[in-house]
Amino acid sequence: MFDQTAITTAIDVLKQRFGDRVSTAASVRENHSHTTTQIGSEWPDAVVFAETKQEVADIVKICAEYHCPIVPFGVGSSLEGHVNAAHGGISIDMNALNQILAVHPEDLDVVVQPGVTREALNDHLRDTGLFFPIDPGANASLGGMAATRASGTNAVRYGTMKDNVLALEAVMADGRVIRTGGRAKKSSAGYDLTRLMIGSEGTLGIITELTLKLHGIPEEIAGGICSFPSVEAACNAVIMTIQYGIPVARIELLDPLQVKACNQYSNLTLPEETLLLLEFHGTQQSVKEQSELFGQIAAEFTPHAFQWTTNPEERNKLWKARHDAFWACLALMPGAEGISTDVCVPISRLAECVEETRRDIEETGLTAPIIGHVGDGNFHVLPLAMPGDDAAYQAIADFASRLSERAIAMGGTCTGEHGIGQGKRKYLRQELGESVDVMQAIKSSLDPQNILNPGKLFF
Amino acid sequence: MFDQTAITTAIDVLKQRFGDRVSTAASVRENHSHTTTQIGSEWPDAVVFAETKQEVADIVKICAEYHCPIVPFGVGSSLEGHVNAAHGGISIDMNALNQILAVHPEDLDVVVQPGVTREALNDHLRDTGLFFPIDPGANASLGGMAATRASGTNAVRYGTMKDNVLALEAVMADGRVIRTGGRAKKSSAGYDLTRLMIGSEGTLGIITELTLKLHGIPEEIAGGICSFPSVEAACNAVIMTIQYGIPVARIELLDPLQVKACNQYSNLTLPEETLLLLEFHGTQQSVKEQSELFGQIAAEFTPHAFQWTTNPEERNKLWKARHDAFWACLALMPGAEGISTDVCVPISRLAECVEETRRDIEETGLTAPIIGHVGDGNFHVLPLAMPGDDAAYQAIADFASRLSERAIAMGGTCTGEHGIGQGKRKYLRQELGESVDVMQAIKSSLDPQNILNPGKLFF
Repeated sequence: MFDQTAITTAIDVLKQRFGDRVSTAASVRENHSHTTTQIGSEWPDAVVFAETKQEVADIVKICAEYHCPIVPFGVGSSLEGHVNAAHGGISIDMNALNQILAVHPEDLDVVVQPGVTREALNDHLRDTGLFFPIDPGANASLGGMAATRASGTNAVRYGTMKDNVLALEAVMADGRVIRTGGRAKKSSAGYDLTRLMIGSEGTLGIITELTLKLHGIPEEIAGGICSFPSVEAACNAVIMTIQYGIPVARIELLDPLQVKACNQYSNLTLPEETLLLLEFHGTQQSVKEQSELFGQIAAEFTPHAFQWTTNPEERNKLWKARHDAFWACLALMPGAEGISTDVCVPISRLAECVEETRRDIEETGLTAPIIGHVGDGNFHVLPLAMPGDDAAYQAIADFASRLSERAIAMGGTCTGEHGIGQGKRKYLRQELGESVDVMQAIKSSLDPQNILNPGKLFF
Repeated sequence: MFDQTAITTAIDVLKQRFGDRVSTAASVRENHSHTTTQIGSEWPDAVVFAETKQEVADIVKICAEYHCPIVPFGVGSSLEGHVNAAHGGISIDMNALNQILAVHPEDLDVVVQPGVTREALNDHLRDTGLFFPIDPGANASLGGMAATRASGTNAVRYGTMKDNVLALEAVMADGRVIRTGGRAKKSSAGYDLTRLMIGSEGTLGIITELTLKLHGIPEEIAGGICSFPSVEAACNAVIMTIQYGIPVARIELLDPLQVKACNQYSNLTLPEETLLLLEFHGTQQSVKEQSELFGQIAAEFTPHAFQWTTNPEERNKLWKARHDAFWACLALMPGAEGISTDVCVPISRLAECVEETRRDIEETGLTAPIIGHVGDGNFHVLPLAMPGDDAAYQAIADFASRLSERAIAMGGTCTGEHGIGQGKRKYLRQELGESVDVMQAIKSSLDPQNILNPGKLFF
């Protein structure tokens, strides 16, 4: 599909223009194809370090002229092979576009470049009393988070990236720079190109600026935990909590294996049953009310008490299992790699989906704890494998495949927040049928040469 | 662009297939081009009453074969000429697709056909303790609301249609039926075609099914009103309320002229100053807390007290001005027509935008009250004109033009919730620049014959 000679020429032209900001060093190329999945690394032929949006536009124009693939790169924390250079070409490193361009406290919005990470943004905002809530775990770049429609633990209250980007600017496949909206809170003016770009995984354009919604740092935060005799009991408590309209900020589920891992890793003494961890945001009075209400709901489904507190230190102690979950999981099999996968189902099917998945894990003989953002019906499985154990990797791939199909069969999605990338392309059509043809028609119309992140989303 | 003979042939073929559900009666055609704007009516050549999504697909296929324009029609309450048949062809009446297909209380969602109106949906839901919050004023069809990205008074808390549609099904320009998602609360699987269809005004596809998010009916509702010495004072109170994170459900502004109109029409004795009307949803305790907090904030900006209550009858009394606002406005000029227009700006610019608009109204000599959904920075102006007064209509058109340009210049949008339709096409490029080329590329790729609602959004 792409011609290596043309790619080489493109890189030569880029070198003339950008000098030593074009690197073909092996280590740099390797760094820019790192994926934390089981998908093998596919190095770009070169990495170009862009510093301004005009440079991004110029790079795209050069690549368009020579028909050279372009893979946008933030911090490389995506989980489905999004930054692999499946067809060679260049990786465009966006980290130098890391300016916070404007904070508008009275409008609760901020204008940032895509290389700003979420932690850098929140550090910058600290004195304003505002914060940006989306937290996918990794200290990801905001451009990458938008491109993959990221979410995380507090999406149940604050939504995902699709709900928290007011507008964006992007360089399209022909080098044109477009702006998809202004700073108004809502608009009915034309097609929602903001949402079209969010989750497009770099295949439609390269995001060069984002206008993000901010939220007030809550006056008070309460955190708590509660054990349940079964996944079903925990899920029923979640369903009732959501139905009751309690504006829970976080509601996380750890399955018994994950709890066991946390007990071992962090010296905790939690019952090795299903655990829910909750967080409530609001005024002193309202978080108290929310916590007490949840306690009453939980009491209908478990003999264990709901322990909660507004004291930050004690809250962190209660949440310690969640904070250490990833490392606790890895410690179950020292030296192993964890291969994260995620699905999302209607919440009414969550208990069933988690239980079937646990049975599948057991039957397959995998070590694979489950953690869920259960307020959204979204959960992750982290199967472990020792590097080089091909049989284990194959078993994990087969398991992940069954998991995706299970979620789709339950009216859910093969990915709640990780994206399609390379890893889940085969489920996209299974999930969305002929919608995929519509997506591909859009892709062809906006990037007829297929130079923007080819080999992602579609085959 | 379209050939009348081909359109006539298409209608003949449709008549063979659908018999007397294809009408060419003048009264029916007129009814299906009704717009409540100053844009003249443009009748379709025929109206086809569809009863199933398969029929919608068949109608589209016939129209595609003969190159006949198709204008989707719900209840005709849109405000920018969306249902006019600018290029003739057929209007496809969707009202018979009015089934509520499934209610899922445990998932807080519902699956509906597009002809269901929002009031019919909420009547149906009454016993479930759930409701669908989007309220654009008119008892619009949910399909139309999705197609125009409608919102309304409580968008400040519950979002707009873009935030409350989980997934949809649509017939595309070639008659293919696609489904854009499942019932999972969130997904990162592929392009966000749901959001692309929402607000596409029938130009990309015809919506045949919607999966909507529901919300719990609040345990308690508090309502209240407060007068302010100036628009600026009221807006500052709004900004502080939003910044403080009070989850206000409704926050409406009436300008002094609108208050005067309401006093006259509804025999009220409100101070003829800027009025804010608020509503809070939550538990008994939380609405009390919210109301008291707002009262404290308001006290910094006005000498008037914030009056509030949770008693439904008293609440309705306090809100009477808002409920009667439209009719009160029309009564300012008996026999006149009101020509509604809307814009939306960052909330920090709202006072300035409203004040400049009031001055403009005064200088132009129009009678034009202002009502705002001010929590979002969105406001409406309803200039009045006597039918046949061409000069007044021209003055209103010029005024609306300046208003759109003013909002865009302030970083806002020419339409917060009414849409582009025919009326605001000329501002779309002014607001979004080359983004409009991207929209048109998408339109061309998905509807190469331009048969779906031609003449809307784009020239």
